[in-house]
Amino acid sequence: MTLKDYDTVWLDREIREVKYIDQSKLPGELVIKSVQNLDDIRNAIVDLEVRGAPAIGVFAALSMYVLSVRIGGDSMADFVKEYVRCSDYLQSARPTAVNLSWALSIMRAELERFTLHRFEAYLLDPNLSDIELDDELRGYIGNVLLKKAIEIYENDIDVCRSLGKNGVSIINAGDRILTYCNAGRLAAVRYGTATAPIYLADESGLNISVYCAETRPLLQGARLTAYELSESGIKTTLICDNMVASLMSQGMIDKVIVGCDRVAANGDVANKIGTNGLAVIAKHYNIPFYVCAPMSSIDLSVKTGAEIVIEQRKDIEVTDMWYKTRMAPQGINVYNPAFDVTNHELITAIITENGVVRQGDGFLVAATK
Amino acid sequence: MTLKDYDTVWLDREIREVKYIDQSKLPGELVIKSVQNLDDIRNAIVDLEVRGAPAIGVFAALSMYVLSVRIGGDSMADFVKEYVRCSDYLQSARPTAVNLSWALSIMRAELERFTLHRFEAYLLDPNLSDIELDDELRGYIGNVLLKKAIEIYENDIDVCRSLGKNGVSIINAGDRILTYCNAGRLAAVRYGTATAPIYLADESGLNISVYCAETRPLLQGARLTAYELSESGIKTTLICDNMVASLMSQGMIDKVIVGCDRVAANGDVANKIGTNGLAVIAKHYNIPFYVCAPMSSIDLSVKTGAEIVIEQRKDIEVTDMWYKTRMAPQGINVYNPAFDVTNHELITAIITENGVVRQGDGFLVAATK
Repeated sequence: MTLKDYDTVWLDREIREVKYIDQSKLPGELVIKSVQNLDDIRNAIVDLEVRGAPAIGVFAALSMYVLSVRIGGDSMADFVKEYVRCSDYLQSARPTAVNLSWALSIMRAELERFTLHRFEAYLLDPNLSDIELDDELRGYIGNVLLKKAIEIYENDIDVCRSLGKNGVSIINAGDRILTYCNAGRLAAVRYGTATAPIYLADESGLNISVYCAETRPLLQGARLTAYELSESGIKTTLICDNMVASLMSQGMIDKVIVGCDRVAANGDVANKIGTNGLAVIAKHYNIPFYVCAPMSSIDLSVKTGAEIVIEQRKDIEVTDMWYKTRMAPQGINVYNPAFDVTNHELITAIITENGVVRQGDGFLVAATK
Repeated sequence: MTLKDYDTVWLDREIREVKYIDQSKLPGELVIKSVQNLDDIRNAIVDLEVRGAPAIGVFAALSMYVLSVRIGGDSMADFVKEYVRCSDYLQSARPTAVNLSWALSIMRAELERFTLHRFEAYLLDPNLSDIELDDELRGYIGNVLLKKAIEIYENDIDVCRSLGKNGVSIINAGDRILTYCNAGRLAAVRYGTATAPIYLADESGLNISVYCAETRPLLQGARLTAYELSESGIKTTLICDNMVASLMSQGMIDKVIVGCDRVAANGDVANKIGTNGLAVIAKHYNIPFYVCAPMSSIDLSVKTGAEIVIEQRKDIEVTDMWYKTRMAPQGINVYNPAFDVTNHELITAIITENGVVRQGDGFLVAATK
C-alpha cells in the first residue's frame, strides 16, 4: 500500500471510527490512525496529524457523526446539548481555517433541519427535553448525520477534481511551478487544491516541474508536498523558503500556485505564514501568482483580510524542532503566527471549482455567483 | 567566562595555534577550539565552525602565520612553494566571501614584499632555491607575517567600531530593527558589522528592539544572532524567515540592517541566501534597507552582482538538519545556494567604516574614495 491507495481521512468499514493518515509522521512513516472520542479527535487537529483546510472540514464532519453515535442521555434535549458541546469544542481546535466551522455548521444545520421537520423545534428548544431518545430515534439521527457527512466527504473529492480541471488551463508545457506549504492531496481527501492542476497537468504530459518551499516552522512543504509530488513521479525540487527570490531573480520560476485557508470578500487571502512574502516577491519579478480556493474557503462574512483572525502558535515550533538539540537560546522571545494575509492586488487569479476569477474581474461578484 | 569575554578568533599566548569559538556548537555550548595544521584550519571554515566574512578573513591571516612556522624544507623556494600551496588550499574553502581571499592575498603580498626587499626576488622566483632557510631567516619571515596578521586582526576591531559609529546615525529611538543571518560579533572579531550600530544604539539608551530571522538552512540568525543579542540584554525576538512580510505589512518593523559577504562596484550586494527576498519585501512596504559593509568586502573587480560566484552547498543542510530524523523524502532534489544577490536599487544605504553611502550617491565613487 502506498500513498495513492489511501484517502487522507475516511470512515472505517464499521462506520464506528474516523481513520486518517497521521501527517505528523510523514514522510518517514505512513501511519494510519483511528479515533472515536472527542479529545482524540480534537487533538488530531491541534497536533496537525490531520491538517489542510479541506481535510479538516471533512474530518470534522465524519467525526461529528462518529461522536453522535456515542452520545448518551435519555432525552432529545440531552442529545442535542451534548452534540453542540462537542461541535463547539472541535470548533475551538483551530481558528483560522474556515472549513472547520463550515463543516461543523453544515452538520449542525442538518441536525436542526431534522428537529424542525420531525418535532417542529429549533435545535436548542427546551421542549426537546420531553422527547425520549429511543433506539429508533437514534437510528434516524444517525442516518441523517451520516448521509450529510458522506456528502461533505464526496463533495470534497468532486470539488478538487473540478478545481484541477479549471486550474490546468493556466499551466503551459514545461512550466516550472513554485508551490508552498501543502495544499496537496494530503490537505484534502484526494487530489488536493493547489496540487490538483499540477497532477492533472502532469498526467496530460505537459512536462512540468515543481519547486516546493519547505514552509517553516512545521515544514509541510518538505515533509508533505515534496513527498506526495515525488511519490507521483513529478520532477520535484525542495528549497528553503528564503531561496524563492533567488530563483525568481534568475528566471527559474514560471508561476506560483498555492492553496488558501480563507478568502475574504475582496479577494484577500489568508494562507500559511510566508504566502504573503512569496506574493510580494513574485509581483516584483512579474511572475503570476495563483491561489486555488474551493468555494467553501471563500468567506463573504469578512470584507477584507484585515478581519481574519490569525492563529498564534507555540514558541517551541520555532525554537526546538531542529537538529537533535534546541537550536535557539533559552528564553528567547518568539513571534509565531500560523498564517498571513496576502493582499488581493498581489494575486493574478483565484482558481475555484466554479471557474478562474482573474484580478480585476471583481472577486466579490465572482464569489457570490 | 561568557561570550563577551572572548573574541571570535585569536592567537593563543604561545602564538603556536589559532583559537576560536566553535560556532557550530552555539547556542548550546560555548566551546573554544585550537587549530594548527592545514586540514583542521580549512575544515574549521568549511564546516562553518568559523563563519562570517570578516572573521574568516582574520582567521585565515592568523592561520597563515601559524602554518608558516610549521613549514619545513631547506631553501627559501621550498618555503614559499609550500606557503602558496597552503594559501591556495585555504582559499578554496569558501568561494563567495571576499574577505578570505582578501586576507590571504594581503599575507601573501607581505611575504612577497619581504622577498623583494631582502632578495630582490618575486615570490615564485626560481633563484630563491639558492637561499638556505636557516633559523635567522625563519625568524625574519615569522616576524613579518605575524605583524601583518595582527594588523589584520586589530584592523577588524577598529573597522567594526567605526562602522558602528557611522551606522548609529540611521537609528532612531524605539526602532524595531530586523536583522538577518549573523553579521554580529560572532561574524567578526568583536562588535560585528550589522550588529555594531545595534550594540552602540543600545548602549546609547535608544531603547531599540531587534527581530532576528532564523536564516535557513543553517539557522545562524536563531543560533548566533538571537544568542549574542539577547546575551547583551537587547530585546530580541526570533522569527522564521517567511514571517518577515507579515511583520512588515503590520507595521512592526522600522528598518532592516544586514551584513554582506561582497559588494560589487555598482552596489549590488551578495549576502546570505534570503537577503534579496527581504530587500524586495522591504521595498514593497517602504521600509529602509541598510547593508553594513566593511570596505574590505567591497570588490571593485566585479562590476555587478551578476559576476559574483554563488557557492552551492550540500543537500543535507536542507533535508536532514531538523527534528531527530530526516524530514524530507529520501532522494528528493534540493537546490541549496548559500548566497543571493540583492540589486543595489533595493538598498537604501551601505554603511562602511568610512561613512554612509546612500542610494543615488553613486556606490562606485564612494567605494573608491
